[in-house]
Amino acid sequence: MKEKTNKKISTESYKGVRDFYPQDMFVQNYIFGIMRKVAESFGYNEYGASILEPADLYRAKTGDEIVNEQTYSFKDRGDREVTLRPEMTPTAARMVAAKKREFSFPLRWYSIPNLFRYEQPQKGRLREHWQLNADIFGVESIEAEIEIISIARAIMKAFGLKDGDYEIRVNDRKIMNYILEDFLSLSPAESHSVSKIIDKKDKMSKEDFADKIRSIVGEKSDELTNLLHSKNLEEFISLLPEKARTHQGVLEIKELQNKLAELGIKNTVFSPTLMRGFDYYTGIVFEIFDTNPENRRAIFGGGRYDDLLSIFGAEKIPAVGFGMGDVTTRDVLETYGLMPKYKPATELYICVLEEKYRNYARQLAQDLREDGLNVAVDSSGKKVGDQIKYADKNLIPFIVCVGENEVKNEELKIKNLKSGEETALKASKVYDFLKNKKS
Amino acid sequence: MKEKTNKKISTESYKGVRDFYPQDMFVQNYIFGIMRKVAESFGYNEYGASILEPADLYRAKTGDEIVNEQTYSFKDRGDREVTLRPEMTPTAARMVAAKKREFSFPLRWYSIPNLFRYEQPQKGRLREHWQLNADIFGVESIEAEIEIISIARAIMKAFGLKDGDYEIRVNDRKIMNYILEDFLSLSPAESHSVSKIIDKKDKMSKEDFADKIRSIVGEKSDELTNLLHSKNLEEFISLLPEKARTHQGVLEIKELQNKLAELGIKNTVFSPTLMRGFDYYTGIVFEIFDTNPENRRAIFGGGRYDDLLSIFGAEKIPAVGFGMGDVTTRDVLETYGLMPKYKPATELYICVLEEKYRNYARQLAQDLREDGLNVAVDSSGKKVGDQIKYADKNLIPFIVCVGENEVKNEELKIKNLKSGEETALKASKVYDFLKNKKS
Repeated sequence: MKEKTNKKISTESYKGVRDFYPQDMFVQNYIFGIMRKVAESFGYNEYGASILEPADLYRAKTGDEIVNEQTYSFKDRGDREVTLRPEMTPTAARMVAAKKREFSFPLRWYSIPNLFRYEQPQKGRLREHWQLNADIFGVESIEAEIEIISIARAIMKAFGLKDGDYEIRVNDRKIMNYILEDFLSLSPAESHSVSKIIDKKDKMSKEDFADKIRSIVGEKSDELTNLLHSKNLEEFISLLPEKARTHQGVLEIKELQNKLAELGIKNTVFSPTLMRGFDYYTGIVFEIFDTNPENRRAIFGGGRYDDLLSIFGAEKIPAVGFGMGDVTTRDVLETYGLMPKYKPATELYICVLEEKYRNYARQLAQDLREDGLNVAVDSSGKKVGDQIKYADKNLIPFIVCVGENEVKNEELKIKNLKSGEETALKASKVYDFLKNKKS
Repeated sequence: MKEKTNKKISTESYKGVRDFYPQDMFVQNYIFGIMRKVAESFGYNEYGASILEPADLYRAKTGDEIVNEQTYSFKDRGDREVTLRPEMTPTAARMVAAKKREFSFPLRWYSIPNLFRYEQPQKGRLREHWQLNADIFGVESIEAEIEIISIARAIMKAFGLKDGDYEIRVNDRKIMNYILEDFLSLSPAESHSVSKIIDKKDKMSKEDFADKIRSIVGEKSDELTNLLHSKNLEEFISLLPEKARTHQGVLEIKELQNKLAELGIKNTVFSPTLMRGFDYYTGIVFEIFDTNPENRRAIFGGGRYDDLLSIFGAEKIPAVGFGMGDVTTRDVLETYGLMPKYKPATELYICVLEEKYRNYARQLAQDLREDGLNVAVDSSGKKVGDQIKYADKNLIPFIVCVGENEVKNEELKIKNLKSGEETALKASKVYDFLKNKKS
């Protein structure tokens, strides 16, 4: 046998990723369960893909910072350049482009992939996170944005958040393009730089921000700063040149806010500094923003990306979607005291009093499983007191003990470990008894 | 804006991994759902971890071929060597070792991770697959093997497979170690080589196998070959030296087969050539083997690995587990005609007859979603005929149309697209109507 190193191997996970012990996995499953349920309630169907993608997929539209500084990319043993996906939208677009002739549009798709970014781990940001992606492909009208934002709001509601806990910030890339390219007459490269500065506004001081803007925009930078600081859409419009006041982007934002309000979604706020990082957005962008004074920050967001499919040489397909991450979601649930309380999947523990009744216990467990219960049987052979302690420590709510009396009398005593209450019943009644306790 | 390449990007996924369109994801979710349900019914709780692990984790016990030739390993931007996990057991062992003082043993854990191997893609083997891993930590006695094998069998049953469709092959590493090291007096390195040859027996000709064995074992190679070809445990025992006939490994296999038979699991077969690839197994190993004459092959397997936690410098913890992959599971379901029939999550499609009733339709959808139905609303604005065609093509079973009559009369006509049957009812009755149709 080849000599093995006897070096002790670390029990730590790789930096910036998480181990999910059953109690953590319970929270993940709770979060994913709500996301899944709401997405499906809107008629969205789940898709999936590998975390490994050809590196080329991200070069066109994901944004230089992410691709050059934040991806996990490497060459495989066959010299192909591959990337651990940093986001899901390019994958979804790739899959839609590959089979677009087979589909009847619109497509309503969702997925809960894990994503990787090489970043310094910090609150709300880890190197690996999971993210609900919900996207509608094939709808040109604003009905797509209305549906997508309705889903985002329905998920917040399903988690227990009230409309007053957050605002839905909206902006339109078309307005920003008009302002940067037409109103300020910036070149495409300058526009791109300014939009990246605006995107990072909250990460720098006001002075820094103004300086950076001035260095590119020049004499009109005050006008830009005033526009960006408008308190609402009306003020913003009033600062625009006359002929731009009915610009398509402006009308879209108005229509979106009005139609959402008719559906009872009244916490939208026009936010001219809202950019969202990705280069592929083409129209409305939005962000769910936590308004808790101690915790003001974006929870998640999305927008319209009508041109992304053209990177595959396919015809354009209009598309709107969003991504909602598990790390920020968990932070929000903690902030608002909305975390679910852990309980194990196991509903009943069967203690074995004597070795010779072990098979009886196993058979009983098997019958109860076929009824639909989750049942563990002792396999330790320890004293009954230790078996009960084990069930209790593992938060299993009920136990029964199997020994001579139980087998002879065909009657079980089922014990609630929390209350101490004991109930005698036939094996065939255990399922009904526990089912009633659950509901 | 930085110049972008205008090269057309491929819509293909990376080689050897899969895209899961909704119809594929439906099958994945079906498979994972059964695995999850059965594992939880035995009292197993879900855990999870990142696909990225420090490369060191696999160096000690996973096996040289996998580590040197088949892993995806690379250096991150901080020069750490990382690996996309090729199997889950080292991760589970790492997590148990990290918190062993906090746990009350035995731990019953399961997970359904994705795993990567750099291999030539072929039937039953892809570069990425998902795998149920179920493990029990902390049980020294054979009760652990009995429970684990019972789970494996319960999963096969839940998929619709009969005991006659497969056999459960069992062997014991202790017997093999005795034969190789004591009976044949091989060095540890020679034993390791021979066990690798035995593991690959089915991938070479009989002559090749005999030659390879002879080149290491020498004059006793016929005795070894005879042992390996024994038809059952009795014949195998009769070929052992007198004093080895009550060897611990032999007794374990006997006890395992007897106790499983008492529980109604009678399709176990002693299989002395069964090795299972990983170096970490220490006792009983088993394999679920498809006996369909046109499809004879291992479906999945596992075994006991009592020493694995020692690579972390932790005390040993006895452990038994298995891994069951999605690719082979899917192949088996196809072979036996057990694949589930696709249906979308969406239960009802609401067609919008006139633009002014769109909000009514959205509100109706929202009410039905709150009742628990999955409802999509038209957002195409197309003619009603096209809306219905869309629902039909997407296999949505029911539609209702919303227009002047429906709003005025507060009555909906719900149509079954398959049968053509129409039913008139109040909106408040839609949930009950569809719920009855489902069950």
